[in-house]
Amino acid sequence: MTTYKLTYFNIMGLGETIRYMLSYLGKDFEDFRINDYPSWVNEFKQKMPFEKVPLLEFDGHRLHQSMAICRYFAKEAKLNGDNAWEELQIDMIMDSFVDFRHAVWAYFYNKDENNKEHLKGMLFKKTVPLYLGKFDKLFEEQGYLANGKLSWADLYFAAVIGYFSFMLQLDIVKEYPNIGAFREKIHAIPNIKAWLDKRPTTEW
Amino acid sequence: MTTYKLTYFNIMGLGETIRYMLSYLGKDFEDFRINDYPSWVNEFKQKMPFEKVPLLEFDGHRLHQSMAICRYFAKEAKLNGDNAWEELQIDMIMDSFVDFRHAVWAYFYNKDENNKEHLKGMLFKKTVPLYLGKFDKLFEEQGYLANGKLSWADLYFAAVIGYFSFMLQLDIVKEYPNIGAFREKIHAIPNIKAWLDKRPTTEW
Repeated sequence: MTTYKLTYFNIMGLGETIRYMLSYLGKDFEDFRINDYPSWVNEFKQKMPFEKVPLLEFDGHRLHQSMAICRYFAKEAKLNGDNAWEELQIDMIMDSFVDFRHAVWAYFYNKDENNKEHLKGMLFKKTVPLYLGKFDKLFEEQGYLANGKLSWADLYFAAVIGYFSFMLQLDIVKEYPNIGAFREKIHAIPNIKAWLDKRPTTEW
Repeated sequence: MTTYKLTYFNIMGLGETIRYMLSYLGKDFEDFRINDYPSWVNEFKQKMPFEKVPLLEFDGHRLHQSMAICRYFAKEAKLNGDNAWEELQIDMIMDSFVDFRHAVWAYFYNKDENNKEHLKGMLFKKTVPLYLGKFDKLFEEQGYLANGKLSWADLYFAAVIGYFSFMLQLDIVKEYPNIGAFREKIHAIPNIKAWLDKRPTTEW
């Protein structure tokens, strides 16, 4: 029997996307969480592919990269689009999300306070309204991020809203009501709800 | 008959990945290049999906995001892996490349000279050797980025080596001989060679 072990930090972060996907598929997994920064640096980091987590292990395999992993399991879950054209629509929106993610990271993980303050201006004036505005509009018009139906992109996005709300200190589901309604819809999926009911509470 | 129009800047940059992929498939395309920054900002930027290029237009469609576009055409070119597991291997390495790309961008496009100098230290001491070292090793051991055979990831990576060499001011193909040998192999593919012979010469 295949057993899954997810290694990530004790936050939602990007690891939460894999927790959502495995939960959607009804797969049990060991939710291994690295609790402190020193043990990450001293025990784990060097052993990870490209020195990053999440890492998903099963049947002797070591998978990394949250999007690649979610796209892979999406095929089993039939959440990857019905053909190459639908897959393209999902990939285009997710790669745009990656651009957004890196803009937010460049701000949030910035250790240079002057530079951080400068980036903050651009981020909140331009980037956040552009991306979250477009995502919100997509949900309003089509209900989902791509193809007007549920895909792994939706599970992924719903899973990181808490993480991004924390990084931006912005109540995304309140500021963008269609994102809020979308997340409620995803969170009502029984297997997702079951995960939410049992997951550890973390701030981000 | 389908006609393709690629809109990008007058550089190799990320647009070159789509130029390689379309060339590999033997598809002609209009190689439309925006030559100056003011016209980008004033004429084009607002009209682009998420205000970015490359943009690929055909049959009334407007495709964006270089990786999503290359993955889509890879299916036609049979360069996407033979099954979900092989696709996963390609996606994992490409998403790691995206992490590398953003680390390089955070440095290269940085307008804060102090912050840039700080990032430069980390980049050249840690990030560049880690990523380019692993890519070089993959080429040495397996000949390709994933599955030991040609995929869209290889075309994509070969297409951006010039761009990254410029951003890093590092002669990548000289510093990493297996990357160099790999690029020669890709550049010897007849349809790619035909593109190289006719493309405009640009510095990056």
